[in-house]
Amino acid sequence: MEIQDLAKAIDEVWLVLAAVLVMFMQAGFALVEAGFTRAKNAGNIIMKNVMDFSIGGVVYWAIGFGLAYGGTNVGGLFGWGDGFFFSDVTRSSEWLFQAVFAATSATIVSGAIAGRTKFKAYLLITPFITGIIYPVVSHWVWAEGGWLANLGFVDFAGSGVVHMLGGVAALAGIIVVGPRIGKFAADGTPQPIPGHSLTFGALGVLILWFGWFGFNAGSTLGAVGADIATPAMTTLLGGGAGAIAAMFGSWKLLGHPDVGFTLNGILAGLVGITAGANSLPFGVALFVGAVAALIMIGAVRLLERLRLDDPVGAVAVHGAAGMWGVLAVGIFNPDVALSAQVIGIVAIVGWTFATSMAVFRLADRLIGVRVTESEELSGLDLSEHSIDVYPEFTFHAK
Amino acid sequence: MEIQDLAKAIDEVWLVLAAVLVMFMQAGFALVEAGFTRAKNAGNIIMKNVMDFSIGGVVYWAIGFGLAYGGTNVGGLFGWGDGFFFSDVTRSSEWLFQAVFAATSATIVSGAIAGRTKFKAYLLITPFITGIIYPVVSHWVWAEGGWLANLGFVDFAGSGVVHMLGGVAALAGIIVVGPRIGKFAADGTPQPIPGHSLTFGALGVLILWFGWFGFNAGSTLGAVGADIATPAMTTLLGGGAGAIAAMFGSWKLLGHPDVGFTLNGILAGLVGITAGANSLPFGVALFVGAVAALIMIGAVRLLERLRLDDPVGAVAVHGAAGMWGVLAVGIFNPDVALSAQVIGIVAIVGWTFATSMAVFRLADRLIGVRVTESEELSGLDLSEHSIDVYPEFTFHAK
Amino acid sequence: MEIQDLAKAIDEVWLVLAAVLVMFMQAGFALVEAGFTRAKNAGNIIMKNVMDFSIGGVVYWAIGFGLAYGGTNVGGLFGWGDGFFFSDVTRSSEWLFQAVFAATSATIVSGAIAGRTKFKAYLLITPFITGIIYPVVSHWVWAEGGWLANLGFVDFAGSGVVHMLGGVAALAGIIVVGPRIGKFAADGTPQPIPGHSLTFGALGVLILWFGWFGFNAGSTLGAVGADIATPAMTTLLGGGAGAIAAMFGSWKLLGHPDVGFTLNGILAGLVGITAGANSLPFGVALFVGAVAALIMIGAVRLLERLRLDDPVGAVAVHGAAGMWGVLAVGIFNPDVALSAQVIGIVAIVGWTFATSMAVFRLADRLIGVRVTESEELSGLDLSEHSIDVYPEFTFHAK
Repeated sequence: MEIQDLAKAIDEVWLVLAAVLVMFMQAGFALVEAGFTRAKNAGNIIMKNVMDFSIGGVVYWAIGFGLAYGGTNVGGLFGWGDGFFFSDVTRSSEWLFQAVFAATSATIVSGAIAGRTKFKAYLLITPFITGIIYPVVSHWVWAEGGWLANLGFVDFAGSGVVHMLGGVAALAGIIVVGPRIGKFAADGTPQPIPGHSLTFGALGVLILWFGWFGFNAGSTLGAVGADIATPAMTTLLGGGAGAIAAMFGSWKLLGHPDVGFTLNGILAGLVGITAGANSLPFGVALFVGAVAALIMIGAVRLLERLRLDDPVGAVAVHGAAGMWGVLAVGIFNPDVALSAQVIGIVAIVGWTFATSMAVFRLADRLIGVRVTESEELSGLDLSEHSIDVYPEFTFHAK
Repeated sequence: MEIQDLAKAIDEVWLVLAAVLVMFMQAGFALVEAGFTRAKNAGNIIMKNVMDFSIGGVVYWAIGFGLAYGGTNVGGLFGWGDGFFFSDVTRSSEWLFQAVFAATSATIVSGAIAGRTKFKAYLLITPFITGIIYPVVSHWVWAEGGWLANLGFVDFAGSGVVHMLGGVAALAGIIVVGPRIGKFAADGTPQPIPGHSLTFGALGVLILWFGWFGFNAGSTLGAVGADIATPAMTTLLGGGAGAIAAMFGSWKLLGHPDVGFTLNGILAGLVGITAGANSLPFGVALFVGAVAALIMIGAVRLLERLRLDDPVGAVAVHGAAGMWGVLAVGIFNPDVALSAQVIGIVAIVGWTFATSMAVFRLADRLIGVRVTESEELSGLDLSEHSIDVYPEFTFHAK
Repeated sequence: MEIQDLAKAIDEVWLVLAAVLVMFMQAGFALVEAGFTRAKNAGNIIMKNVMDFSIGGVVYWAIGFGLAYGGTNVGGLFGWGDGFFFSDVTRSSEWLFQAVFAATSATIVSGAIAGRTKFKAYLLITPFITGIIYPVVSHWVWAEGGWLANLGFVDFAGSGVVHMLGGVAALAGIIVVGPRIGKFAADGTPQPIPGHSLTFGALGVLILWFGWFGFNAGSTLGAVGADIATPAMTTLLGGGAGAIAAMFGSWKLLGHPDVGFTLNGILAGLVGITAGANSLPFGVALFVGAVAALIMIGAVRLLERLRLDDPVGAVAVHGAAGMWGVLAVGIFNPDVALSAQVIGIVAIVGWTFATSMAVFRLADRLIGVRVTESEELSGLDLSEHSIDVYPEFTFHAK
C-alpha cells in the first residue's frame, strides 16, 4: 500500500460523494418546479425532470463527455478523440461528477417552460443541452486549453457554465413557447398563478441547498491538498444572505415577507456565490449572495414587464444571478480580470442563446413546442400522461 | 500515525457514509409506498416502514448479524458463535452497512401488502425477514465460506440477495393476504386504484436513486484499492436506462408516457444493475437497466392476470428485475458461470418463498393477516391507528 | 505529499460531509413542524425555519463562533479575541460543523411556538440563540477550558448542549406566547389540533434521522484514529428503540399504535442517545433510546396538564429526552460522575431559561410576540405573508 493509493482513495471518496449530492439536486428541482406550479401539471414536471436526467446521463455518456473532456483539444473550442461512448474506468469519478453537472444545466429549463410545452418537444430539446450546448461551454472554461480558461476567465463551480447557461436556455425556451394562458391580461398586467404546494417547493429548495454543498465544495475535484471546507462555508453564507436580502427586499416591495421570493432568494444567493465559492472572503460572500437575491427580484419583474412567463423564476434565479456571480469574481477577486469575465459572459450567453433558440425552433417546426389550448387548460397531466396526480383530493378548480 | 491507520479511516468514512445513504432509502420506500396507494392508508404505511426499520435494527443486532457473519461457519449455511447481541466495536461499520441492507430487504414487503394487512401481523412477520430469512441468504453469498459463494455465484450488491429476496417474500405475502377489495372485477379484470400523491411517489423514487449510490458503490466495503466510482456510474446509467425503456414501453403499450411505469422503471433499472454494478461495461449496464424495466412491465401485467394484487409493484420491481440482474451477470460477465447464477436463483427463491409462506401462514393462524372488510373500506389509518393523515383536506371519497 | 496532508484531508472530508448532513436536518425540522401543524400556518413555519438558519449562519459568523471558540478563554465562561467576523480559512470545517449545530438549537424553538407568534418577534428572538445563548453553553462544554468540561461534564454530541437547550428555550417561548386559541377547553382539557400532513411529518422525521448520523458520528470531529462507526450504530439503535417504546407505550395508553407518538419516539430516542452515542454499549443504547421515548410521552402529557401548548412536542422531545440523555451518560458510563452531569443540567437549564425568558419578554415589550385573535384564526400564512400555501386544494375548514 503506497501513499499515492491512499491519496487517490480520499479524492475518489470525496468526488463520488459530492457527485451523489449533486445528483440529489434533481429531486430538489423536481419539487421546486412542481410545487411552484399548478397541480394539474405536476406529473408532467416530474416526467420532464426524471427524463432529462435519465436521457442526459446516456447522452453525456455517448457524446457529451467526449466533447467536453476528450483527449484531443480542437482549438480550445471542444474536445475530440477518446471520451465518446465513455469506457475508461480510471476516469469514472470524473465522468460522474461532470455528468451530474450537465444534467443540472438541462433541468433548469424544464421549470421555465412548465404548463404549456409538449412533452415530445421537451424530449427532443433536452439531449442537445446535455450532449452539445453544455459540454462545449464546460470545455471552454474547465478543460485544459479551453479558450476561456486560457483567457483567464474564472468560474469555480459554474455560476456561468451551469446556471447562467441553464437560465439563458430557459429564456430561449419561454420566448419560443410563449406565456401560459391567463398569465398576462390584455393590457400586459401579469396575473398571479400561484403554485399548488409551497411545502413541496420549500423542501425542494432545502434539498437544492443540501446538494449545493457537493456542487460547490466538490468542484475542488479532490480533497488532498485542497480546501474543501471554505467553499462549503461560503455556500452556507451565500444562500443565507440571499434569503435575508430577498425577505427584506420583498417586504419593502410587497408589504410582507414573501415566501416565494425568500425561497428563490436562497437559490439566487447560491447561484451567485458558486463562481467565487473558493476565493471570495466570507464577508464578500455575504454581499454577493445578498445582491444576487436582489438582482433576482429585479429580473423577475423585468421579465414580467417584457411579457415573458417563467413560472418558477428560472431565468431570474439561474440566468441573472449566475451572470452576477461571474461578474462578482472579476470585481472582488484581485487575481481575476473583470474584462475576462465579461468576455466569458458574452461568449456563453451568445452561444447558449443562439443554439437554444435554434433547437427550440427546430422542435417547433418538427413537432410543435406548444400544446393546444384545451390541453393546456385541462392540464398536461391529463393530456400528455392520462393521469391525475392527486386523484382523491378535491380542488377549487384544477 | 501509521499508513494503516489512514487506510482504515478512509475505509470507515466510505462505509459509514454509504450505510447512511442506504438508511435514507427507508424514506424513499415510505414515500413510494404511501404515494402510490390511497390516502386512507398513508399513516399505516408510514408506521410499517418506520417499524420494520426500527425492529429490524434491533433484531439484526440480536440475531441477524450472528447468523450472517458470526465467526463460526456452519456448513456454509449460516454463521454462529459470536455476532449475536453484537458488541464488537471494531466491526461497527460492518454491522451498520449490513444492518441497513437487511432492513431494505424487509421494507420491500410492506408496500406489496398495503391496504388490507393487519398491523399486528406485520409486526410479527417483519422480524423473521431481518432476523433469519435475509441473514441466511446473505451468509450463503457474502460470508466467507458461504455455499453459494463457494459455487461461484456472484451478486455484487444484492439484486438477488436483497431485492429478489424482498420481492419473493412480498409475493408470498400477497398470495396469503389476497387482493384488496375492488382490485379485480368478478371476471378478473384488474381495476386501477390510483395512488394518492404521485409527487410523493416521485420524490420517493429520487430518494431511492440517491441512496442507491451508497447501496451499490458502498458494496466495495472499502475505498482504498477499490474502484468506487464505476459502480456509482453504472448506478446512474442503469436507472436512467430503466426510465427510458419504461417510458417508451408504456407509451407503446398504453398510448402515453406513463408516470407510474417510468418511476418504477427507474427502480427496476437500479435493481437490475445492482448485481453487476462493479463488473459490467457501461454499454451493457444500459442494456441491463433497460431490459429490467421491460421485464418489470411484463411482470406487473402477469401478476394482474394471475389476480395477484401488488399495489406498488414490489414483486415486479424487486423480484422480477432482481432475478434478471442476477442472470445478467452470468450472461455478460465472462468470469461468472450462468449455471451458478441459476442455482443461486433457485436456492434463494426456494428458501425465501418457503420460509415467507410459513411465516405469513403462521401469522394468519395466530392473529389473522387480513383486516375486516369494513376496516379495509374505512382505511387502515382509521381502523388501526385512529388517525386521519390529512384531516383538513376534503376528498372525493376516502 | 506527506502523511499529515492525507490525515488532514480525511478529517476534512469527514467533518464537511457530517456538517452537510446536519444542515439537511433543517429540511427535517421544517417538514416535521409544518406537517404536525395546520395548513394555514405552513408557509409561516417554512419562513421561520429558513430564516433562523439563514440569520443564524450570519450571526454565528459575526458573533457566535467567537463567543464559543475564540482564542481567548474568559474564565471558562466564553471565548473572546479572534473568531468574531470569522475569517480563518484554516478553521473553515470547524466553523461549518459548529454553525450547523447552532442553527439546530435555534430551529427547535420555531415549532413549539407555531401558529400564534408574530414573525417579526421570531426574527428578533432567533439571533440571540445562535449568537449568544447557544455559543456560551457550547463553550462551557466543548471549548478547551470550558468550566463544565473542566468539571468532567460529558455530552458527546449535544443531548444537553443542543437539544435540551433548544427545548428549554422553546419552553420559555410557549410560556410567554401562551397556548393557541382552542387548544384548551375552559376546564383545561386539552383539545387535539391535528397536523395537516403526517406524510410530511414522517418524511421530516426520516430526514432528521438521516442527518443525525452526521450529528452524532461527526462529533468525533475527525476520522483518523477515531471510531466513527460506533456512534453511527448507536444512532440507528437509539432511534429504533425510541420508535418501538413509543409505539407500545402509546398503544397501551391510547389503545392504538399512535403514528404521532411513534414518530416523536424516534426523535426522542435520537435525542436521548446523542450524549452517549460514542460511549454507551449497544444494549444500553437501546435502553436509553426506549426510556427517552417514554419520558417524551410523559412530558407531553405533563405539559398539557400544565396548560402549556407545544404543537409539535419540541419541549418533550428535545428538552425532556435531552435531559435524560445527559443523565444517562452519568448513570451508565463509569468514567463520568453523575454529579457533574446534574450540575451541567442545572447550569444549562438555568442559563437557557433565564436568557430565553428575557429575550421573549423583551420581544414582547418591543413589538409583541402574539398575533391578534383574528390573525391567528385566519392563519399566519394569510396574515403575515399574504399567501395560501395550498391555493388549489379545498379544505373542510382552514
